[in-house]
Amino acid sequence: MMKSPDQEHPEEALGWAARDASGLLSPFKFSRRATGEKDVKLKVLFCGICHTDLHSVRNDWGFSTYPLVPGHEIAGEVVEVGSKVEKLKVGDKVGVGCLVGSCGSCDSCHDHLENYCPKMIQTYGATYHDGTMTYGGYSNMMVVDEHFAIKFPQNMPLDAGAPLLCAGITVYSPMRFFGLDRPGDHLGVAGLGGLGHVAVKFAKAMGVKVTVISSSPGKREEALQRLGADAFLVSSDINQVEAAKGTMDGIIDTVSAVHLISPLIDLLKNNGKLVFVGAPNRPLELPVLSLLTMRKIVAGSCIGGLKETQEMIDFAAKHNITADIEVIPIDYLNTAMERLAKGDVKYRFVIDIGNTLKEA
Amino acid sequence: MMKSPDQEHPEEALGWAARDASGLLSPFKFSRRATGEKDVKLKVLFCGICHTDLHSVRNDWGFSTYPLVPGHEIAGEVVEVGSKVEKLKVGDKVGVGCLVGSCGSCDSCHDHLENYCPKMIQTYGATYHDGTMTYGGYSNMMVVDEHFAIKFPQNMPLDAGAPLLCAGITVYSPMRFFGLDRPGDHLGVAGLGGLGHVAVKFAKAMGVKVTVISSSPGKREEALQRLGADAFLVSSDINQVEAAKGTMDGIIDTVSAVHLISPLIDLLKNNGKLVFVGAPNRPLELPVLSLLTMRKIVAGSCIGGLKETQEMIDFAAKHNITADIEVIPIDYLNTAMERLAKGDVKYRFVIDIGNTLKEA
Repeated sequence: MMKSPDQEHPEEALGWAARDASGLLSPFKFSRRATGEKDVKLKVLFCGICHTDLHSVRNDWGFSTYPLVPGHEIAGEVVEVGSKVEKLKVGDKVGVGCLVGSCGSCDSCHDHLENYCPKMIQTYGATYHDGTMTYGGYSNMMVVDEHFAIKFPQNMPLDAGAPLLCAGITVYSPMRFFGLDRPGDHLGVAGLGGLGHVAVKFAKAMGVKVTVISSSPGKREEALQRLGADAFLVSSDINQVEAAKGTMDGIIDTVSAVHLISPLIDLLKNNGKLVFVGAPNRPLELPVLSLLTMRKIVAGSCIGGLKETQEMIDFAAKHNITADIEVIPIDYLNTAMERLAKGDVKYRFVIDIGNTLKEA
Repeated sequence: MMKSPDQEHPEEALGWAARDASGLLSPFKFSRRATGEKDVKLKVLFCGICHTDLHSVRNDWGFSTYPLVPGHEIAGEVVEVGSKVEKLKVGDKVGVGCLVGSCGSCDSCHDHLENYCPKMIQTYGATYHDGTMTYGGYSNMMVVDEHFAIKFPQNMPLDAGAPLLCAGITVYSPMRFFGLDRPGDHLGVAGLGGLGHVAVKFAKAMGVKVTVISSSPGKREEALQRLGADAFLVSSDINQVEAAKGTMDGIIDTVSAVHLISPLIDLLKNNGKLVFVGAPNRPLELPVLSLLTMRKIVAGSCIGGLKETQEMIDFAAKHNITADIEVIPIDYLNTAMERLAKGDVKYRFVIDIGNTLKEA
């Protein structure tokens, strides 16, 4: 017989869970496994709210299971380590991102690309190796295989650093893999939200010239003044697109709404690359002739592997890159979700779990 | 005042031209320039009929100008060389493909990618440096800058070799550029026509495993027995696609009709590449999530540069690769065009210009 979530493991845990597709979150008692040989137990201090969390609690994609404890931008402190843990010790500041497991033996795992392992286990809403459900970071503690924990550098704040574990690596990984990180190159960043604003910061730190491409003319000052982008372009303005045609080495497209990509392809140089990191829920229109004539590429990229995530956070720490955040108490969670649905946040909500998630 | 086509240059030429969008071709007297310092004059012996020729004479893309002499798969013999010609001499067997000019000074030209030069000049229907119209290979003689002439290796037949100048380089170039040429790799070739059948031959010569992907179950035996493909897959058969899912390193998509690409993307391994070499006249549906989850790439490629075209024909000669052709007299041209429109040719018509194009 299946045990209830609060009885299947020995360690008591408290989180906030959605119980159905209304997406409303409320306190939830469950349990975590005992700290295994290769596990670390962490006290969760902060957790970012990713747009995926909103889709998941509302079952927008149709495969959510309830109760669902979201959260995969998790930062906290190690409070216990297993006997075979090598890289972490009690007191270390650590993060956990989108993954907590993978098969460990496929080509992707050998290549440090656990994110592309066909058996990768997501941080919440997935089935773990032991057959139990995974619960995310909207909770007071976690137990995780140390392979899936990221060590936070000394100067990386836990609150503003937490979103890097998803939003950060999602844009950093394709910039590295597709060679859009060369000083002097020209990168477009389509969409200025949780992912886009971090992409701008990484690109500037890499010495890349950045143009923010947005459908909202009102974001110009924000992009240029506050984030330091080199240029700003309204994607629906034919004249602006025409003027910048053929000038970009690549574009990171963070827009998850259905949108026109032919203007983006036009902005690329020969051999230029348009890389999607957000997935619209309907197919986009692909103008094939535009790809042919100048040998252009359209691709997708999905978060990153653990090795690269550590590299990303070390790079971010070195260049003082963090996400722009609004810290909220957990009691504000449902309001925050509503505001997120309206795009009313600059640019990431982060829940102060450590100070505000308490037993009633 | 503009001179008429038969008077603008000193050298008399005879070809077959379309006069309007009916696409009907008939004899046409025009002229060619005198052989310049860096030019070679060639007697045209054979010319392949590319599907582009059909689109052009019928003005399917809306930018044809008449009279239009098609033909960019041209093979012949050098009969005169300019004083500064270096690589060719009278009597050499040569080919001319899709290009007869480019700017010579842009990045693409410096990189031997004249095909991506923004000022590249197509072999027919384009304006040459001197302001006159270019006329293609359905004609008895040509004058061309030696840079745009390809030297035929001794053992390469002129008739079955001619189609390599367009169909051949179009599939060879992306196989090299996108790294789909590694022995043991698995390549899909979508569409078994003029381009596809040559792609299969190149892939086999490179030691690549080839699966032909077709919408026509009837092509199975042809693909496996005659062309030597390793496997055959019907793209509309869900079970066949499912069985081969995630097995291909790349796919060369030669299909120029509007078609579903999600099954093709599913066939790719992680980091797999779907490369279009044909351009449907309407946008295709791009399932972005399928690109993201396994970091897949969709790209386009358009013919090839001159250096690579020479490399291609040398490779073909070494491996005894030619196109499968049906040689026709020029009087059969309009009938051949009708048959081509119906896909009734295996796999390329080649006009025997040398023996059949005569003054009336």
